[in-house]
Amino acid sequence: PAKFRANMVDMARKVKKLGQDDPRRVIHSLKVGLALTLVSIFYYYQPLYSSFGVTAMWAIMTVVVVFEFSVGATLGKGLNRGMATLLAGGLGVGAHYLANLSGHIGEPILLGFFVFLQATISTFLRFFPKIKSRYDYGMLIFILTFSLISVSGYRNDEIFELAHKRLSTISIGGSLCVIISTVVCPVWAGEDLHNLIALNIEKLGDFLEGFGDEYFKRTGGEACKDDNGFLEGYKSVLNSKTSEESLANFAAWEPGHGRFPFRHPWKLYLKVGIMARECAYRIESLNACLNADIQAPSEFGSIIQEACTNMSIESGKALKELALAIKTMVQPSSADSHIENAKSSAKKLKSLLKSGIWEDVDLLKVIAGVTVASILIDVVTCTEKIAESIHE
Amino acid sequence: PAKFRANMVDMARKVKKLGQDDPRRVIHSLKVGLALTLVSIFYYYQPLYSSFGVTAMWAIMTVVVVFEFSVGATLGKGLNRGMATLLAGGLGVGAHYLANLSGHIGEPILLGFFVFLQATISTFLRFFPKIKSRYDYGMLIFILTFSLISVSGYRNDEIFELAHKRLSTISIGGSLCVIISTVVCPVWAGEDLHNLIALNIEKLGDFLEGFGDEYFKRTGGEACKDDNGFLEGYKSVLNSKTSEESLANFAAWEPGHGRFPFRHPWKLYLKVGIMARECAYRIESLNACLNADIQAPSEFGSIIQEACTNMSIESGKALKELALAIKTMVQPSSADSHIENAKSSAKKLKSLLKSGIWEDVDLLKVIAGVTVASILIDVVTCTEKIAESIHE
Repeated sequence: PAKFRANMVDMARKVKKLGQDDPRRVIHSLKVGLALTLVSIFYYYQPLYSSFGVTAMWAIMTVVVVFEFSVGATLGKGLNRGMATLLAGGLGVGAHYLANLSGHIGEPILLGFFVFLQATISTFLRFFPKIKSRYDYGMLIFILTFSLISVSGYRNDEIFELAHKRLSTISIGGSLCVIISTVVCPVWAGEDLHNLIALNIEKLGDFLEGFGDEYFKRTGGEACKDDNGFLEGYKSVLNSKTSEESLANFAAWEPGHGRFPFRHPWKLYLKVGIMARECAYRIESLNACLNADIQAPSEFGSIIQEACTNMSIESGKALKELALAIKTMVQPSSADSHIENAKSSAKKLKSLLKSGIWEDVDLLKVIAGVTVASILIDVVTCTEKIAESIHE
Repeated sequence: PAKFRANMVDMARKVKKLGQDDPRRVIHSLKVGLALTLVSIFYYYQPLYSSFGVTAMWAIMTVVVVFEFSVGATLGKGLNRGMATLLAGGLGVGAHYLANLSGHIGEPILLGFFVFLQATISTFLRFFPKIKSRYDYGMLIFILTFSLISVSGYRNDEIFELAHKRLSTISIGGSLCVIISTVVCPVWAGEDLHNLIALNIEKLGDFLEGFGDEYFKRTGGEACKDDNGFLEGYKSVLNSKTSEESLANFAAWEPGHGRFPFRHPWKLYLKVGIMARECAYRIESLNACLNADIQAPSEFGSIIQEACTNMSIESGKALKELALAIKTMVQPSSADSHIENAKSSAKKLKSLLKSGIWEDVDLLKVIAGVTVASILIDVVTCTEKIAESIHE
């Protein structure tokens, strides 16, 4: 019992944390509950029930299946479902009439053939990347509705009414979802994407700002492993591709909202995301240098220290400036000057290296830091270009 | 019309390519068609129809929704759907009886409250990462079935029969899917995962084998941009995390098949995948060095050329050996010796650098290559360890 209680407490803590991390989750759950309760009025309220009957369950199903976390996802699924039902319903009725002409024995054979053909073709089409990313759910509903309508037609001659009822209950359920998800505390995928990109760039900036100091502290022999959480933040950027792409996909369905007009160029965000990830790969290499076995401080280290630290801090500042610019959607004011500073540090470093005043030549690690930092400057410049193209 | 025809030809080419890239897609589509045609016999065959009636449509729905590309995904969805329906059906019947006790006016209110409560809690639970990855679909069906059964109960007193029919049609549909997907040309997610990991490691090996030569050719001034497709192969490794994780998830549902027993340690593959990705990040840095502005050949370059090329080729060979070992599931025979060679080259290189015989000091890029190669050796060693742990 003590163990059970400990488990329960642990569980409760997890639930609380999940809710606190993103309170919109709690609100979303309540919204789903509300939508479902509202749609079940179809059953409770006599006049509604008498006109829809058991087909009212399609409305409940639609709500459960279509209601997603963000407005874009809900709208996308709802439209997919609606359009697919309309199209497949029409075709299903057509197939039923065609099969009807072929007599009592031919009918099931012909219907079976239609269903087979349609399911095979539609399933194959779902493998197309473009269809998969935007219309996958629609294709699924297309297969489902076509099969249901055409096959039901064999037993039920009011097939037209069936198709009609299915379509109207689905539209009602779908519209309810869309309305509730848009009106009550909406969660916009576009805004999430916007924030995610800005946050990712900020994380990269955090790392770079801290990196220079940390690196030379460690090569200087001080092992301070305490407050370097900022050194891990960038890791999530490495694998953010999938979530960025799905958010951009959802965002494309959304109407204008807040600071984003309809048809906001979401694809540019993906480009910035790719740039950020390339930058993150470089940072991963930097981090590996940081965690390699620490070397004794070399004379050379202190020579390049200033320039390296400068480059790292300045490019970090530039990235953070860019992140802020994305967040507030204004032109970055001082990012350019930070980049200029980083570039001039890089030049200084290069001339230092060319001057050839080294004796101590066990520099493997130090030089690595330098090189990657110089690559980084290119990446920063790229990011800046993209950020500008967004603010056009 | 000419343009239309060109479009059609283009379309046909795309379809053909999609099918040729992975012929299992065509087979999968045919399997879905077959399953749907079989399940519609519920409607055509009188004895079956008279016992199930319109609830036969649940079987059709189940087939459409549950049938997935791989056996694991189908089995996972089928089990999720079956279990969730059973549980939610039971609870729904319970809720109906409870609400029934509270009289004519209280019943819809209490039912509505139950539906609201259940939907809210279940939706919130879906946010837990563990539940989301394996039981998301089950939670969805749980919400759906509970709402349908408890709300339908308000209008239909044969609620127990309804729940029973729903469960049995869903089980029939689900079993049909599982049987067809397992028996007819099965696609095993586990095998796909296995091959994906091996292929990824092989791609990294390809890059490394070619890298040394290519790099020094380019610094040597020969711009040969023709046959270096192998230099791009590794890019897909960078973003393979999501597909690896979902395959591992599906694979966990699969029974033993071929060379893989039930409960094969799929998680180890994910570990190897993470290692491979870390290696790929390093390679991305190497690739950036390759594409940086080409330098004139330096005296220094020719000094380190041999050791670098050796390291790169040997670690590439080791990785390819490991990939082959994963594929054939035997202990890698010569991977260790390749790694040893790479290590000794690294040592040689380090002593070269220590010896300090340099005059020409504009070495930024060259050293970068060296450093990353030395990091790579660590990664190779890691990969080897993991590969061994699999073959235990």
